[in-house]
Amino acid sequence: MPESTPALSSVRDLRSGEGASARPFASLLVLRKRTVRTASNGNPYLGVELGDKTGSVGCTVFSDSPAYEALKDAEEGAVVRVEGRTETYQGRLSPKLTKASVVPAAELAGADVVANLVETAPEDGEALWREFLGFAEALALPELRATVRNVMDDVGEAFRTAPAASVMHHAYRHGLLEHTVHMARAARALLPLYPEVDPDLAMAGILLHDCGKAVEYEGTLAARRGRRGILQGHVILGYQLARKAALKARLDADRTERLEHVILSHQGKLEWGAAVLAATPEAVFVSKVDELDAKMGMVQRALRTAPEGEEFTERVLGLDMPLFVKPPQA
Amino acid sequence: MPESTPALSSVRDLRSGEGASARPFASLLVLRKRTVRTASNGNPYLGVELGDKTGSVGCTVFSDSPAYEALKDAEEGAVVRVEGRTETYQGRLSPKLTKASVVPAAELAGADVVANLVETAPEDGEALWREFLGFAEALALPELRATVRNVMDDVGEAFRTAPAASVMHHAYRHGLLEHTVHMARAARALLPLYPEVDPDLAMAGILLHDCGKAVEYEGTLAARRGRRGILQGHVILGYQLARKAALKARLDADRTERLEHVILSHQGKLEWGAAVLAATPEAVFVSKVDELDAKMGMVQRALRTAPEGEEFTERVLGLDMPLFVKPPQA
Amino acid sequence: MPESTPALSSVRDLRSGEGASARPFASLLVLRKRTVRTASNGNPYLGVELGDKTGSVGCTVFSDSPAYEALKDAEEGAVVRVEGRTETYQGRLSPKLTKASVVPAAELAGADVVANLVETAPEDGEALWREFLGFAEALALPELRATVRNVMDDVGEAFRTAPAASVMHHAYRHGLLEHTVHMARAARALLPLYPEVDPDLAMAGILLHDCGKAVEYEGTLAARRGRRGILQGHVILGYQLARKAALKARLDADRTERLEHVILSHQGKLEWGAAVLAATPEAVFVSKVDELDAKMGMVQRALRTAPEGEEFTERVLGLDMPLFVKPPQA
Amino acid sequence: MPESTPALSSVRDLRSGEGASARPFASLLVLRKRTVRTASNGNPYLGVELGDKTGSVGCTVFSDSPAYEALKDAEEGAVVRVEGRTETYQGRLSPKLTKASVVPAAELAGADVVANLVETAPEDGEALWREFLGFAEALALPELRATVRNVMDDVGEAFRTAPAASVMHHAYRHGLLEHTVHMARAARALLPLYPEVDPDLAMAGILLHDCGKAVEYEGTLAARRGRRGILQGHVILGYQLARKAALKARLDADRTERLEHVILSHQGKLEWGAAVLAATPEAVFVSKVDELDAKMGMVQRALRTAPEGEEFTERVLGLDMPLFVKPPQA
Amino acid sequence: MPESTPALSSVRDLRSGEGASARPFASLLVLRKRTVRTASNGNPYLGVELGDKTGSVGCTVFSDSPAYEALKDAEEGAVVRVEGRTETYQGRLSPKLTKASVVPAAELAGADVVANLVETAPEDGEALWREFLGFAEALALPELRATVRNVMDDVGEAFRTAPAASVMHHAYRHGLLEHTVHMARAARALLPLYPEVDPDLAMAGILLHDCGKAVEYEGTLAARRGRRGILQGHVILGYQLARKAALKARLDADRTERLEHVILSHQGKLEWGAAVLAATPEAVFVSKVDELDAKMGMVQRALRTAPEGEEFTERVLGLDMPLFVKPPQA
Amino acid sequence: MPESTPALSSVRDLRSGEGASARPFASLLVLRKRTVRTASNGNPYLGVELGDKTGSVGCTVFSDSPAYEALKDAEEGAVVRVEGRTETYQGRLSPKLTKASVVPAAELAGADVVANLVETAPEDGEALWREFLGFAEALALPELRATVRNVMDDVGEAFRTAPAASVMHHAYRHGLLEHTVHMARAARALLPLYPEVDPDLAMAGILLHDCGKAVEYEGTLAARRGRRGILQGHVILGYQLARKAALKARLDADRTERLEHVILSHQGKLEWGAAVLAATPEAVFVSKVDELDAKMGMVQRALRTAPEGEEFTERVLGLDMPLFVKPPQA
Repeated sequence: MPESTPALSSVRDLRSGEGASARPFASLLVLRKRTVRTASNGNPYLGVELGDKTGSVGCTVFSDSPAYEALKDAEEGAVVRVEGRTETYQGRLSPKLTKASVVPAAELAGADVVANLVETAPEDGEALWREFLGFAEALALPELRATVRNVMDDVGEAFRTAPAASVMHHAYRHGLLEHTVHMARAARALLPLYPEVDPDLAMAGILLHDCGKAVEYEGTLAARRGRRGILQGHVILGYQLARKAALKARLDADRTERLEHVILSHQGKLEWGAAVLAATPEAVFVSKVDELDAKMGMVQRALRTAPEGEEFTERVLGLDMPLFVKPPQA
Repeated sequence: MPESTPALSSVRDLRSGEGASARPFASLLVLRKRTVRTASNGNPYLGVELGDKTGSVGCTVFSDSPAYEALKDAEEGAVVRVEGRTETYQGRLSPKLTKASVVPAAELAGADVVANLVETAPEDGEALWREFLGFAEALALPELRATVRNVMDDVGEAFRTAPAASVMHHAYRHGLLEHTVHMARAARALLPLYPEVDPDLAMAGILLHDCGKAVEYEGTLAARRGRRGILQGHVILGYQLARKAALKARLDADRTERLEHVILSHQGKLEWGAAVLAATPEAVFVSKVDELDAKMGMVQRALRTAPEGEEFTERVLGLDMPLFVKPPQA
Repeated sequence: MPESTPALSSVRDLRSGEGASARPFASLLVLRKRTVRTASNGNPYLGVELGDKTGSVGCTVFSDSPAYEALKDAEEGAVVRVEGRTETYQGRLSPKLTKASVVPAAELAGADVVANLVETAPEDGEALWREFLGFAEALALPELRATVRNVMDDVGEAFRTAPAASVMHHAYRHGLLEHTVHMARAARALLPLYPEVDPDLAMAGILLHDCGKAVEYEGTLAARRGRRGILQGHVILGYQLARKAALKARLDADRTERLEHVILSHQGKLEWGAAVLAATPEAVFVSKVDELDAKMGMVQRALRTAPEGEEFTERVLGLDMPLFVKPPQA
Repeated sequence: MPESTPALSSVRDLRSGEGASARPFASLLVLRKRTVRTASNGNPYLGVELGDKTGSVGCTVFSDSPAYEALKDAEEGAVVRVEGRTETYQGRLSPKLTKASVVPAAELAGADVVANLVETAPEDGEALWREFLGFAEALALPELRATVRNVMDDVGEAFRTAPAASVMHHAYRHGLLEHTVHMARAARALLPLYPEVDPDLAMAGILLHDCGKAVEYEGTLAARRGRRGILQGHVILGYQLARKAALKARLDADRTERLEHVILSHQGKLEWGAAVLAATPEAVFVSKVDELDAKMGMVQRALRTAPEGEEFTERVLGLDMPLFVKPPQA
Repeated sequence: MPESTPALSSVRDLRSGEGASARPFASLLVLRKRTVRTASNGNPYLGVELGDKTGSVGCTVFSDSPAYEALKDAEEGAVVRVEGRTETYQGRLSPKLTKASVVPAAELAGADVVANLVETAPEDGEALWREFLGFAEALALPELRATVRNVMDDVGEAFRTAPAASVMHHAYRHGLLEHTVHMARAARALLPLYPEVDPDLAMAGILLHDCGKAVEYEGTLAARRGRRGILQGHVILGYQLARKAALKARLDADRTERLEHVILSHQGKLEWGAAVLAATPEAVFVSKVDELDAKMGMVQRALRTAPEGEEFTERVLGLDMPLFVKPPQA
Repeated sequence: MPESTPALSSVRDLRSGEGASARPFASLLVLRKRTVRTASNGNPYLGVELGDKTGSVGCTVFSDSPAYEALKDAEEGAVVRVEGRTETYQGRLSPKLTKASVVPAAELAGADVVANLVETAPEDGEALWREFLGFAEALALPELRATVRNVMDDVGEAFRTAPAASVMHHAYRHGLLEHTVHMARAARALLPLYPEVDPDLAMAGILLHDCGKAVEYEGTLAARRGRRGILQGHVILGYQLARKAALKARLDADRTERLEHVILSHQGKLEWGAAVLAATPEAVFVSKVDELDAKMGMVQRALRTAPEGEEFTERVLGLDMPLFVKPPQA
């Protein structure tokens, strides 16, 4: 293989040769972190972290490296094409970059590229979005429909791709949308069994309960909490989005307050970030369906990523246990 | 009204005249507690607590009272017919009994009587039981069907009437059956949405998860933990019942262990009494459906017993909040 | 003393004769709670709780009592003039009411009356309010001044009389105003020592941090959480008040977000009700000054109410200790 | 029985007739609490709590009662001889006192009297004290022997009669001595099995670990924490006693510090009041033997006071469970 | 030293030269973990972790290494003889293997080999086992003797070598047996002091309290929780073993339930894994003796492994403190 | 640059070239840790950790290194002059030492040297000390003045340079003095607002509250807890220092006990190390001012060390949040 045109390697590919002798590679990766440092000789150099959905790797780029110029001005979250040599000694990967260029946003349109760069929900993003809209349209009260629509006019773009969490559950691209739709499906199935719960309010509450996360997490290729995420948190951001949307939709004051309460209380416990504890049938219902689907989401992801041939996964964060992945015998 | 034949008064009736002048009454009540004490003159006397589904009241019965003989030999949990005078001073009820007789078990067959003595699930006990059996018959695997059937052959009688808890949720006659059927309904609605959960195992796990409570709580008209309830707890008792039943049903070892695991872990947290944490998709699912229905059961009961005309109930145990009982405006 | 015109007795006066023989009394009290019940004869009667700043007492009013008509239509929180007899047996006070009439709001204008009905801050309410306004006027940035002014235009009336808490600290009339002014004084003294804290933002944050309590607690003569208090809590209510006021005052977006963050985080810990943890120098400062003054407020109140001649108070709620009230020897 | 010379009744005797008609009595009781109050007519009256080892009872003494003079000047903790009538209505005892006199300390010398007034360790106090001294004399190092002796010269009198706790374990007269001797017995049995523990230091640590309680609890007939108990706590008080005693005994600095560490850490956990966590073999050993004997002391007391004929006690404070008191069948 | 026949090096030996230049070595080690990975060129390679009682080291084995064939089929837990070069750069050991072969189980019979591979209890395993049997034979009741014997017939082989825990206390070969025998010795010494504890039941409870760990931990050269250990936990496994054994031994139902209760409750707290809290004198006693010996076991191990010449160890897991290892001066 | 006379490099300088090729260096560093190990050939070698205020680096020194002799006998905490080569591969610094010599204490007198070796309070140590003495002299009561002076005669030397904590707040040279002076400034500003607090006692309590840390932490160039620090903790050590000093100053017993109580309770919560909870106005005040200044100290240090150009720091230990470091816009 000529060194100038290697096939694109994932981070897992690069790591898979850890301990082997150095070899050339080319990759398309996200610039996850970039820090400028100064060497003792006064020259600047970069510490960068590059990654895709299979992992991350750090490397050092000195000012005399041909990759230096492109990377020193790149923004965190940018997609870069890099070439270099793997330079793995003692099983620790430390690639030396020989080339780097930022890929223009326009060229990233193809879902394939992004799909390789970040972990993505297993269900199709488009289909999930249509299903979400369907749930919104099925709301009986026009003002509630309009409220949900108004929020989506506001943050729908980010809502469709954001993760549902940074580490715990549905922590991947489209994860927020997927988790919301899964909760809506569960609620549709359960609502006939709990007639004391107002179905319209509960469903609108579910569709909007986490909408603040569309603001909390910044960047499409990372799940970093931005300024508003840190200073207010998704519960308050979602409450504010819903309040503004309800006002605009002329939702009556009684239902507006109930909907706000569902959002303010959905985290279930104060120490988990709820602003108040649930005090309406709808709020109790939504917080419990949220907890159910969050846990099942952890189960689903653990099953997807389980090492083949093993009975148990490693300890699953949030379950505090390894998960038994072998299905019951036929 | 001639003093000899008053209509039967509930405890709420007796209390409703607190502060008023003494008046005659007759009641049918459960003997909830009975203690023999000795007065300083050496004579024995009784402290008794009598109650029905509307409340409890304590009174003292001296050895020269015509009610003494009947009550001194009555068992706690017995139903007694009493007559007397209300004797309320300063708003504190202290009835003086003039007559008492234990009602033979045979005469209690009528559901009406029992219905007044203890709080009972709002749904019909018979219908709930048929529905429970229907869920059991719908299990696909014959050995799982037989396992559930074997447990019910063993403790079904008690299972049908036991409460689901002594104070927290579904804490009333048929409460355990009601809670179990409600969970089964919820699971039937949810299982298509979580295909990684084995439906047969999850449903059998739900039908049996609390079966140990049929042994834990003693007495049909009270919810007192008996010796086995204290020394083992319902989780272990249920595990043992299911294990014996599965063995007899020749359920394969793999599924037996998974079913046991669902029961051992259903309490969700070690400090709530789980013997282990959930580590299979079925166990995570059942523990979360249990939590959902337990909380919704608290909501339902708070709604049923809410004082008319109020917006909020008092603080609901288990929700740690007052519940907003007024439905959204039409 | 002729029975028809006794001097007005406080609840403490009524109790001071507990165990003594019944005697006539007249009192001016707040109707703290009123419940309609039905006696077994079908007649309604009332359970009422009456109180002033020295305590509470419950009594029963039957439908044939001359006090019945006036009380059955009175609102909770109303001030009533009552007459009756103390009727204390066995040391337990159970007054029998013979007369009752609601005092019109107009007649309550005199501060003296209210001062006897509810516990009031030891400092003068008017002076505290002027001092509060002075702190507001001293803010350097006109938009911050306007923001504080706007909030007070909105809820200032309630803000001036509300308690700072229902049980823990500054739990009395004007308590919220007093606690806020005390914090402002402390901040004015401390700000020169912590130059990294923006003094204008910190001071505005202090003036508004608890403004949501003016909405949370309903009624001027009680500290009952109302509907909005239960469904949103004072942190969110205050955040919303400040946000609206800042918008109207055209406060820049940067400072608006920082001010909101101070309010959202001032409770210090999530489990104490903070919506987010403090992440700016101002927010850390305000939350710690709040905690300091809240604890010192408990100390001050315990000292005021300590029984004379004792070295220690009973265990002080919030300190979890008795307080040593004897000052160091001269 | 002539009313003037009734036999002495215990509080349990008085209560045993609750609900019966009033009758004369005479009792020898401890004045546990005495509060001066003022009736609305300006006359003072007393609220007093009287008790013995079988319980407590409160009563009100008006200034025209013949018992008033004697009680108004009596100190809390005094032993009083009272006469009166039981006056029990509605099952609530409210004795009316007709005579009262304080019993001079000199007349209390007889162990019998005190034995009836407060709960006392089941083992003989004299024998326990001799055994304690025997353990002290058996210490190998003369300076450790002298250290223990010095502490006892200082507080031995109080140490012999103090309770080991106010509510949890060994909470009765001689309880501290009994608990200490029981721990010493256990240590003597265990030390040969744990050779890494210095037996002399561990035993001296046990003999002194709770000596601060002799100062913490004030009064011989009550277990009230005094000023030093509140401001310093028994751990610090014991540390200080042992430090002073070791200095006087010229114990070497190394052992003095180790002995102090055993006392500072014996409570096991910081939140239980330990000043530091155990960090020497001796300190770990003593804290665990303390915990073992404290729990077994709760078991022993629960067995002693269990109602006859019951399988289980009520929930035991500190065990958080009812105790199964029926021994295994022969 | 010729490279082909080096003396066997322990992991500590290999590490001791960290930072030195590469040198040949030969070792006998346990294959603790083995993962197959694929390099980017499509070739498989192995990541393996090798260890003995002195530590662990990871290395990478490529498919062209002469050690590849032997290791790719070896089971985790196998003992392997390896040769290679230390290849330590920058203080991080990364041995390159040049030879590897699995040692047949037959050749491992010699206790010496195993003794070097895993940490082992300091007391002789054979002697501990004889002492355990002696305690069992000394039980007074034949049915209890038979119960213990039956459990040992079932799992005695694993019981003799299992560790008592994976990390906390007695976490080494024979650790379970050692801890059990130490508890039995402590109980024998203490039982005469606590006559309310049935000595036979307590001693049988101690001998069996942790027997479930013989099933929980799989593999003789590792302490990995197996399927049953994860899904049920040692408390339930031990309860089940004892129940079956007691049934077979025809132990009376009363004692069977008490023995089961000791096992179910011995962990002391629900959050530590107890299935119920202790509610019999025997159960309280066993749980406290367990805690005492577990802590003292941590002390003993910390003393054994303390670096020479230091006053204190590093922080000891489970004590949360460094341990002061210097004995008191003579 | 000739290799023999390089300019002195800090650890940050050495690290700044990580990933670059090896180069010669010379540094003045603290020997933070030194361990003697034995290589497999039986030769000893050293593992050492060297550091200054910019960080730490580990390296291995073999017995044939010219640096070996000087380092093997050096004490931890010594200042050493070293030369060598950076030897950074793969971004991990592993310097090879070619020369080493211990710098005599006498030569360290210059504040400059020490200032580079350990992080130091931003305020001048001398000025802080004069301010501390000024606060002490301003105490009104001569005996309190003398008490503070006596403690400083005892441990003042260490007090002036010790850190206030090992990791959390003011964790740097002079940190304890700085924190104490900051608290005194805050108290001087606040005391007029809280007249119930005795100003003399509160100020003396502040000046001495942490004096035990001067004993707890050993060594001037490190913050290691020594023997007394581990076995007693700074709360007890400070209590003991103050007690001795007060006795010598003939402070009255009442104030001595109150001053001791301030020290014993200043940590605020038992689980944070308080020996008792605050029960005097002074103790409540001091514990809250301590908490305020400790948190503000974390804020100040996070601001000082924040990376330039960032809006937020990393998560700040003790705040549990990133800190927003950008000041409000002008």
